Parts: sequence; structure tokens; C-alpha cells
Amino acid sequence: MKALVYHGPGNKSWDDVPEPRIQAPTDVIVKIDATTICGTDLHILKGDVPAVTPGRILGHEGVGTITEVGAAVTTLSVGDQVIISCISACGKCAYCKQGVFSHCLGDEGTSGIGWIFGHLIDGTQAEYVRVPYAETSVYRLPDTMRPEQGVVLSDILPTGHEIGVRYGAVKPGDVVAVIGAGPVGLAAIATAGLYGPSRVIAVDVDAGRVEQARRFGATDGVVSSDDDWREQILAMTDGLGVDVAIEAVGVPQTWNMCLDIVRPAGHVANVGVHGTGVDLPLQDLWITNVTMTMGLVNTDTLGTLLKMVAQRKIDPDVFISHRFALHDMMDAYDVFERAAETKALKVVLTA
Amino acid sequence: MKALVYHGPGNKSWDDVPEPRIQAPTDVIVKIDATTICGTDLHILKGDVPAVTPGRILGHEGVGTITEVGAAVTTLSVGDQVIISCISACGKCAYCKQGVFSHCLGDEGTSGIGWIFGHLIDGTQAEYVRVPYAETSVYRLPDTMRPEQGVVLSDILPTGHEIGVRYGAVKPGDVVAVIGAGPVGLAAIATAGLYGPSRVIAVDVDAGRVEQARRFGATDGVVSSDDDWREQILAMTDGLGVDVAIEAVGVPQTWNMCLDIVRPAGHVANVGVHGTGVDLPLQDLWITNVTMTMGLVNTDTLGTLLKMVAQRKIDPDVFISHRFALHDMMDAYDVFERAAETKALKVVLTA
Repeated sequence: MKALVYHGPGNKSWDDVPEPRIQAPTDVIVKIDATTICGTDLHILKGDVPAVTPGRILGHEGVGTITEVGAAVTTLSVGDQVIISCISACGKCAYCKQGVFSHCLGDEGTSGIGWIFGHLIDGTQAEYVRVPYAETSVYRLPDTMRPEQGVVLSDILPTGHEIGVRYGAVKPGDVVAVIGAGPVGLAAIATAGLYGPSRVIAVDVDAGRVEQARRFGATDGVVSSDDDWREQILAMTDGLGVDVAIEAVGVPQTWNMCLDIVRPAGHVANVGVHGTGVDLPLQDLWITNVTMTMGLVNTDTLGTLLKMVAQRKIDPDVFISHRFALHDMMDAYDVFERAAETKALKVVLTA
Repeated sequence: MKALVYHGPGNKSWDDVPEPRIQAPTDVIVKIDATTICGTDLHILKGDVPAVTPGRILGHEGVGTITEVGAAVTTLSVGDQVIISCISACGKCAYCKQGVFSHCLGDEGTSGIGWIFGHLIDGTQAEYVRVPYAETSVYRLPDTMRPEQGVVLSDILPTGHEIGVRYGAVKPGDVVAVIGAGPVGLAAIATAGLYGPSRVIAVDVDAGRVEQARRFGATDGVVSSDDDWREQILAMTDGLGVDVAIEAVGVPQTWNMCLDIVRPAGHVANVGVHGTGVDLPLQDLWITNVTMTMGLVNTDTLGTLLKMVAQRKIDPDVFISHRFALHDMMDAYDVFERAAETKALKVVLTA
């Protein structure tokens, strides 16, 4: 089969590789109908994620059709079309029983599971993928949804919703600022609206992205290269700051921006994947009653989000900026890598 | 009257000063029956809290008897014996309406209220004190409690309970570690038990304090100068770390200890007053699903704690290590300042 293979920092190619085979009785094999590229894949290609070794097939998002099931699989059948969660979960360990699938203690030849596709095991940017612990790691694609729509629910919509909006404890009337209006930031913006905030402020260095965020539900926008970006945000509150600041970039500057605009007793919800540490001014923060959260998505709300999509409260189509055939994977990477220029959000590849 | 007056870093004395007078119709004047000294007072005396200016009467904890009420006070009368909360609250602003009294927006000639006694206005280490916004800042002392017991509820018990245990979201079965077994850490230990944890581990550099913590409800103890302190704690869990790590010291080392022992999806609740910042390793933390909280006490649970004391689920007496007459204030400071040697916890002064 064909797959996008990582060959070390800066190197990837669309290679002929062996098809995956069932390895454990809880596995299924899925023929990919749609997949996409994540900013995390670009981090891997830069060499930022050393756990990813050369030879690894990338990708952790996908929708596909089951072609083979392991002996222990009873609730999935060949021919079922499923959304593959970016998080694999055994369903049996202490963390899974609490819905903290991101820290599943199951054994896939790794220390725990969680995010393993395109990381510790071969991923979804391929014609076929082996899905471990399938019954607790995939969701049936509703008949009313197209595969390319389902791909948006593999990672970014649950991530924005769970780690941004729910960890941030967005509640009716809140003023919410989302720093970074890329795909995951937009997912936070789109799902924040489900909780009745009074304002959702998109903040980005790119004025075009700020404007675009309105299509996702942002009520206001601030261009963070403006000298008075902070004053603009505070003016949209009672002057004390936002109730919830969601960090959706992953660099110290945007983390610090969140601390600069959150009100006393507010929430900072970090969604970004960080490569370096930050200076935390505890001498100023200890008295603020601010809550700080962070984490890897659990996809425990994927079912809820499917209902929201069915009720047309969330539109997955708006996240898709470019479409490619699966075998045009290298072209899709090229467009996604030049997102500043191509305005790419999610580039979706279909078989 | 006599009062303990701050005269700049390193200097204090038990002075003759004018008696306080009603300044606003919502004030009352309270004759102090019992007061105490807080670690924060020692910080002030070192010059760590520049907002405290020379001439200020220190102290933010106390029980006393009302001697005069302002014209707007309808629910308190002369002769009522009350616990003075360390947090003053107007009761009318947006923060007060949410129970976030620590960030009250009321006006006492300061920017907001919250902690003002012995900080921005004269405090409780005196024969009399003016209590602003009295009806929303004092609690009636139950007939069954002595004044010295009530003093323990002015600050430390609510602080340990609200900022340690409740912000830390302690729940049945949890393993809780409290770093720092001073008065506030012991208050967190004593109130954690109300929530049914499976273990409450007292952690301190001082083996005597660790042992003493068992009287407050600690089920286990670890001396943090042991080389294997972390392994000892992890061995009391399933190996993954504690559910809740409560920081009750206020230095980078103890904050970092919390990060070192908290399990994925656990809570770090900072109670300590910090004088410097810390390095936050977000590159490691972003994926941990850990929640970090911090803040100034609201004393919104003071009423709940009074019930727990009445039901003998919390014993305020165990916090009191030394007793003095009010006019022996300088001797009490001497004992409290040498706590490492005198084993002082709360030193209580009664009129």
C-alpha cells in the first residue's frame, strides 16, 4: 500500500509499504476513506518529537471502512465506516474508567497508550491502518455525515472543546478570548458558543485569520500585533479581564498573553503544544485565584460533538480549506506547510 | 489603646495609639477578645509586602465584641461576639455575588478590598479594631466556642480548606500530599479528611512536624530531606503519583515538588504566598492534564467550618500551641518568630 513515511527531520515521502495486519484480538484494520494533516505532524517533521523514529507512518486523524476485525471484536464488523479517534484507549484501565483516555494505561508495546497513531505506532496517512483497542477507540460515522466531515472530529473539534472550552469552564455570559485562530483555536471558538458566552474574542497576529474567525462564531476580533491589543480586549470586559483565556498556539508569548488578560478568579486553558518552558510569575499569581489547565484531548466528548453536528450547531465543513486525493499527499503537505500563504486550515485527503 | 505597630522593615512595637472610630455607616468597632500572629505578619516585618506602610497596626485574625455600630448596620448589635474574617467584603459587587470575596470591588480608599486588615487598613493586633462592611465580613461566634477557637477560623482553617482542599478538588479515595506542615498546611490536612481521601500525606523538612501532622489527620508522613522522598510518596500511590498535591510553603522548591509527585490528570493547589516566580516546564506539562490552582482565601466556607467544629469533625484547639495575654504581644511575636525552636503553631493572645 501507499503511506506517508517519516524519514527523519525534514524528510518524508509517499512510499510503498507493507499493509498492516491484525496483531492483537482487539485490533481492526481500517481502509482509509479520508485523512488530514495536523500541525503536530509538522512539529514531528521538524524533529521536535524525538519519540517518532524514522520509518514511522504519520497521521492521527481519519475516517475509514473496517476491512478486518480481531477475534475479540464483537461490536464492530467488516464494512462499518468509523471515525478514528486520535486517542487510543484500552477501555479497561483506571484512567479509561474515568474517561481520561489520554492517559490510558493499556499496553501497545509503549508505556501507556493515549496518542500513539503517527507517533508510537503507524498512523492514518496511508491506505490502511491498524487500529488497536478498536471498540474503545473508534466511533461509527453517522449515515448523514461524509468522511471528510468526520475527520474534523478525530482531533481538532474534541481538542478545542475539551481542553479549551470545558477545561476553561466556559459558562453563560462569560467573555472568552481565544489566542491563536488556527484550526484548533477555531475549534475552541466554534464549541465555546455551545455554552452561551457573551463574547468570544478571536486573537491572532494575522488580521485575515481574525476576520475569518467570525465564520466560526467569534463575536469580536483583536489583531495581536496592535500595540493596544490588551486594552482592546479589556475594553470588551468590565475592565478587569476575560473570564476564560484559551491558549491555542503553544509558545511562551501567547501563554503570557493569557496571563495578561485573564481576570481575577478566571481561567487559563492551555491547548497549545509547547516546546519550551515559561517563567511563571507566582509572586503575582498566587493571589489571583486563577485556575490554569492543560492537557491532551481525551475525545470523551466525541459522541456529544457528533450530536451537535447532527443538530447543525457545529458545521465541520467550515474547517476544510483544501481537498486532495489521498495519493496527492505530498501536494497536500506542501499546501499545509505554506498555510500562511495558502490560508490552509484543514487539508482533507479522500480515497 | 495599645496596638502592635509596624515601623518599617525589622521594626515593630506595642504602642499607645488612638482608638479607632466609625468612618462609614457600614462599619462596626470591635473590642478584641482574641487575636493571633500569621506567617504573613512576619513577611510584612521583613519588608516583603511594600503596600504595608510604617504606622500600620498589623493582624488580620481576631474574635471580639462589638462596641459600636454604624448607622447602616441592622443585623449586628453592641455586645455581639464575632469572628472577624481576614477578608473584608462589601457584599454588593460582582465578585461578592459570586462568593469570590477575595476580589471584592468595594471601596475602602484602596483599589478593591479583600485582604486589607493589617495591610491597607489597621488590623486586629490591638485592643480595638474598626471593621468595614461588617455585616458581610464577620461571623457570629457560636455560644459553644471560645474566642481563641474562633481565631483559628479567621484565616487558616478557611485557607487550607478553600485554597488547598476545595481548589484541589479532593474527593473520596484520593491520595493527597500536603507539602509544608505549618499551620496552613495542617489546616489543609485537617479539612481534607472531610472529603474522604484514602491517604493524606504530610510532607515537611522537619521530622517533628511530619509526626505532629498525624494529630491533625495525616495518615502518612514523609520527611522531604530524605533522598528518596519522592519514591516514598509514589509508593503510597499506584506508582503514578498523588491525586492532589497541596503547596503550603510558598517557595519554588516546594512548588516544584508538587509537580514532581502529581499524577496525570491530578491537581496542584497552591496555598503558599510566593515572593518569586518559578520556571514552569510547559513542554512537559502541556500533555499531563494537570490542573493548577492558587489564590487568596474567600472565607466563603467559614460558616460550613463552624458547623464542622460544632460537630467535632474539626478541632480548632489542636492548632493552638501557645497562649499569651494580649498585652504580651511582643513576647508572642518572639515565640512565633522562633517557631523552628519553640515549635509554635498558632500563638493566641486573649484580652
